[in-house]
Amino acid sequence: MKRPIAVFDSGLGGLTVVAQLRRALPNDWFVYFGDTARVPYGCKSADTVKRFAIQAVEFLLQFEPKTIVAACNTASAMALETLQEVVDVPVVGVIEPGAKAAVQAANQRCIAVIGTEATINSQAYHRAIWQIDPQARIVAKACPLLVSMVEEGRQPTDAVVEMVVKEYLQGLKEHEPGVLLMGCTHYPLLREAFGKVMGPEVTLIDSACHTAKKVVEVSGEANTEKNAEGGTVRCYVSDNAERFATLGARFLNEPLGYVSYVPLDALIADPGGALGVMANAKEDPRHVGRGHWG
Amino acid sequence: MKRPIAVFDSGLGGLTVVAQLRRALPNDWFVYFGDTARVPYGCKSADTVKRFAIQAVEFLLQFEPKTIVAACNTASAMALETLQEVVDVPVVGVIEPGAKAAVQAANQRCIAVIGTEATINSQAYHRAIWQIDPQARIVAKACPLLVSMVEEGRQPTDAVVEMVVKEYLQGLKEHEPGVLLMGCTHYPLLREAFGKVMGPEVTLIDSACHTAKKVVEVSGEANTEKNAEGGTVRCYVSDNAERFATLGARFLNEPLGYVSYVPLDALIADPGGALGVMANAKEDPRHVGRGHWG
Repeated sequence: MKRPIAVFDSGLGGLTVVAQLRRALPNDWFVYFGDTARVPYGCKSADTVKRFAIQAVEFLLQFEPKTIVAACNTASAMALETLQEVVDVPVVGVIEPGAKAAVQAANQRCIAVIGTEATINSQAYHRAIWQIDPQARIVAKACPLLVSMVEEGRQPTDAVVEMVVKEYLQGLKEHEPGVLLMGCTHYPLLREAFGKVMGPEVTLIDSACHTAKKVVEVSGEANTEKNAEGGTVRCYVSDNAERFATLGARFLNEPLGYVSYVPLDALIADPGGALGVMANAKEDPRHVGRGHWG
Repeated sequence: MKRPIAVFDSGLGGLTVVAQLRRALPNDWFVYFGDTARVPYGCKSADTVKRFAIQAVEFLLQFEPKTIVAACNTASAMALETLQEVVDVPVVGVIEPGAKAAVQAANQRCIAVIGTEATINSQAYHRAIWQIDPQARIVAKACPLLVSMVEEGRQPTDAVVEMVVKEYLQGLKEHEPGVLLMGCTHYPLLREAFGKVMGPEVTLIDSACHTAKKVVEVSGEANTEKNAEGGTVRCYVSDNAERFATLGARFLNEPLGYVSYVPLDALIADPGGALGVMANAKEDPRHVGRGHWG
């Protein structure tokens, strides 16, 4: 079997990245890990997020992925460099592709960035943007309620969503930005609400699309021949496989075929390396749905 | 030194219970564990919450507490019986005291219950209320956004809070309840917003007050003599001690004197028992503030 592309996130949000990856790489297959036992990462410290990200990657290495994607803005902001140091496989984050797209689209105008408390406080987008354009003007705002709203199933037209989005974006709008960088994987699901407040002259940047392009670059030759595995997504979560399967469809834009539970104890059984994790990871009775690998 | 009362929660919310315990037991001292690396518990499965609760209690046992309080509605709903089976010390939850107070105050009228997704889905309040009054009419509603709103620092008079509270409570109000049971430790901070929607004829029940009474009962003889330790709260958290110290003051109603970081690795080092945890727990450079035990 061909080597998959491995994706991890604190929970559900990374599935929006998988949706873009599947469009860009229709003949590849994907392994996803969502750390639903410890979600969210957005209010946690850098050390803790690093530790969780390393455990996720150790788990994913057993699938011998050709590329690993940190499909979580918080993990990308806090743990990407550490991961790139310790893993032999290319690790792609969502920050740098999003920053690059924002700089291009802004065309010298101000760049507005929204994200979780941890992502915004880390200033990772600031650093990534200034590396490309040291003159770029940036305004940023943490929007802690938006993730909960998306997970609660609220739509962009929901009255509460509209009110909260307006409140968060008002201060940013005063700087007349050229783009709004949606720095959290949940945010594209509220895209219309952002557009309504910011107006048509502000370009909305979804890091997921641009991350997919970057993954195509680093993954080397794409699988061009059609095959049975193409597009398959095999998901593992550290808690609540049923909840993930139910909510996940909205993020992936289609039903999830395979969601399996991995106990946290298996992830952290051997903090020294991937081998301990590999020995412990196994199928669980809480397996949801059908899989190509039964 | 006298034996403390140990309290645990998924994060900050349990400090509202500590505030009530200090009023009821002014000559006692308290040890608090907040699992801020894995907060919140409200969207997680029963198995996972049980595992986290056992780890918290194993950590707290090193202080030889005379009573342990599960000051988290989700953990009380899902893990209390398990804890009571495995621990020799009395373990008090917040569900049963809250249910008892609600039945009394409702006086045959309908009881409205609000809480996290996990607490409401567990139907723990239903069971506790029906054990006291099998005829009780109950309406319940999960209110997932409220915890994030409190942690974001929003006040009961905030326009977004008012709108969301109105939306959540509207359906409950139609049943003309006699009481509203605030089944989450964060909710008392939004008490005024609930009161405004429900009206003066609906009694608001704060489980924290009634849990404190229950703790006085089971803790045996209260410390009646004044002493230097009385009222002291020693906090341990699994992440972000600084954030906890900053936000916690609002929940405790005064500044936190002592917040120390306990690595998650220490909590789970020996899943078999308390001894492994005891050997690993130690003071950390990220210690915030001063403590009576330096």
